[in-house]
Amino acid sequence: MVPMTRFASATDITRTGENRYAVDLDPGYLIGAALNGGYLMAVLQQAALAESAHPHAVSSSYHFLSPGSGGPAEIEAEALKRGRTVSTVRVTLRQAGKAVATGTVATAALDPGAVPVFEAAPAGVPPIEQCRAFDPRADRASESGFIDRVDLRFAPETYALLTGGHSGATPELRGHVDLSARDGGPAEDPAAFVALAVDALPPVVSALTAWRWAPTVELTWHLRALPEPGPLAFRARADLVSDGWFDESVDLWDAKGRLVAQSRQLARLGR
Amino acid sequence: MVPMTRFASATDITRTGENRYAVDLDPGYLIGAALNGGYLMAVLQQAALAESAHPHAVSSSYHFLSPGSGGPAEIEAEALKRGRTVSTVRVTLRQAGKAVATGTVATAALDPGAVPVFEAAPAGVPPIEQCRAFDPRADRASESGFIDRVDLRFAPETYALLTGGHSGATPELRGHVDLSARDGGPAEDPAAFVALAVDALPPVVSALTAWRWAPTVELTWHLRALPEPGPLAFRARADLVSDGWFDESVDLWDAKGRLVAQSRQLARLGR
Repeated sequence: MVPMTRFASATDITRTGENRYAVDLDPGYLIGAALNGGYLMAVLQQAALAESAHPHAVSSSYHFLSPGSGGPAEIEAEALKRGRTVSTVRVTLRQAGKAVATGTVATAALDPGAVPVFEAAPAGVPPIEQCRAFDPRADRASESGFIDRVDLRFAPETYALLTGGHSGATPELRGHVDLSARDGGPAEDPAAFVALAVDALPPVVSALTAWRWAPTVELTWHLRALPEPGPLAFRARADLVSDGWFDESVDLWDAKGRLVAQSRQLARLGR
Repeated sequence: MVPMTRFASATDITRTGENRYAVDLDPGYLIGAALNGGYLMAVLQQAALAESAHPHAVSSSYHFLSPGSGGPAEIEAEALKRGRTVSTVRVTLRQAGKAVATGTVATAALDPGAVPVFEAAPAGVPPIEQCRAFDPRADRASESGFIDRVDLRFAPETYALLTGGHSGATPELRGHVDLSARDGGPAEDPAAFVALAVDALPPVVSALTAWRWAPTVELTWHLRALPEPGPLAFRARADLVSDGWFDESVDLWDAKGRLVAQSRQLARLGR
């Protein structure tokens, strides 16, 4: 039997009553003093799917209300709609009675054999062999932190941006993301990993300035196809950095070159 | 005194109790048998802002649960977080006890004088004088319907796509959107109109096939700057049409060329 990845055990939930679940949040997913939002979404998604007859979280919108920390948390999951094609579940994570994150998740069944009617050309992400490991958050991450959980490889021009000057740069990052081999390697359930992957990158504004903490206010992502196991290619970009706010759009492609996820978040520029 | 636009009176809400509002939904915003989602968002946004100390709905994520119809409806609006910079309000619209749409809205104060740190180049939308009025939904809209409420002008290449062949087309629409002069012209509150404008276009897949009803499952939009009064330039596009689903991303720019809104929805292809 293959041992569970740390990701699988860290997102494992226990039903405690009607519409109620418990989880022991893993401090290994901290970035500085707060749990990564992608990790929280991956946890909440388990509860949303447990309350739905449909197998896939196709559209998930989350608002982040206060920082999450390691340790026990409770989840409330309530079906708002049970449809033949789409069901909608509201999920809220609380710690010590305080709301940490709340999401609304539309579930449905994706067809693994679907052939696109139209698909935009994928971003030119170089093969993983040409990409380099680096994380600008390393200095601030706690010792047992997030950067040990997720394996990030950046395309050469992105690597140059993150490690060197930012002058005249556009906020765009490209590369590959996977679960770290240290944690047991690729996820057993590639679709579950996507919830983490859409929020696993350093803030896209790291291409403009040195890395700073950038709290996500809202993040919506859509699962568009069921990914192959293994690393996902990513392109993150921002269209507007202004007034203390920035958008970050992340697209993910699997090894077959299929667009598997589209994400956009609105976040605050850290101080 | 300037008379109210129809949009302003159609989105007027009345407080009926703690966290409760009433609205008389205007059947003039029907598209076929269902009220337009942008109109419902504009109504719900009034309730979200009424429950918040911050003046602007900066990030709004909505799930559409059942079709809305003209007539009385009630709104529940509950503050999930009251922060110094950001407050978060949940809003749900019900008709005859049935949930029609639910949203989570982050509110804050945008600075009208903000100067962007970075802004992507705007889409090349031709001046409104070069654009033509047309709505592929005209055949199916009810007589007093949505196409009388919103003035849409399409760029020449978009107009050609919508009125002619679709062979080899990419799903992208460009043009300008405004309140119809028939309804009293430009909105008194340009930021209120944006909620309607992000979902006022024919489905972007109308560029690929003849217009069909395309129910929105989820729509998130971000208000990035306070618009000047008047028409907004739009670019709508889809990256993936597959498995009965499509994404539609809509960006809006005001007369000064500023990106004022970013929207993305996930919708079903109609039959």
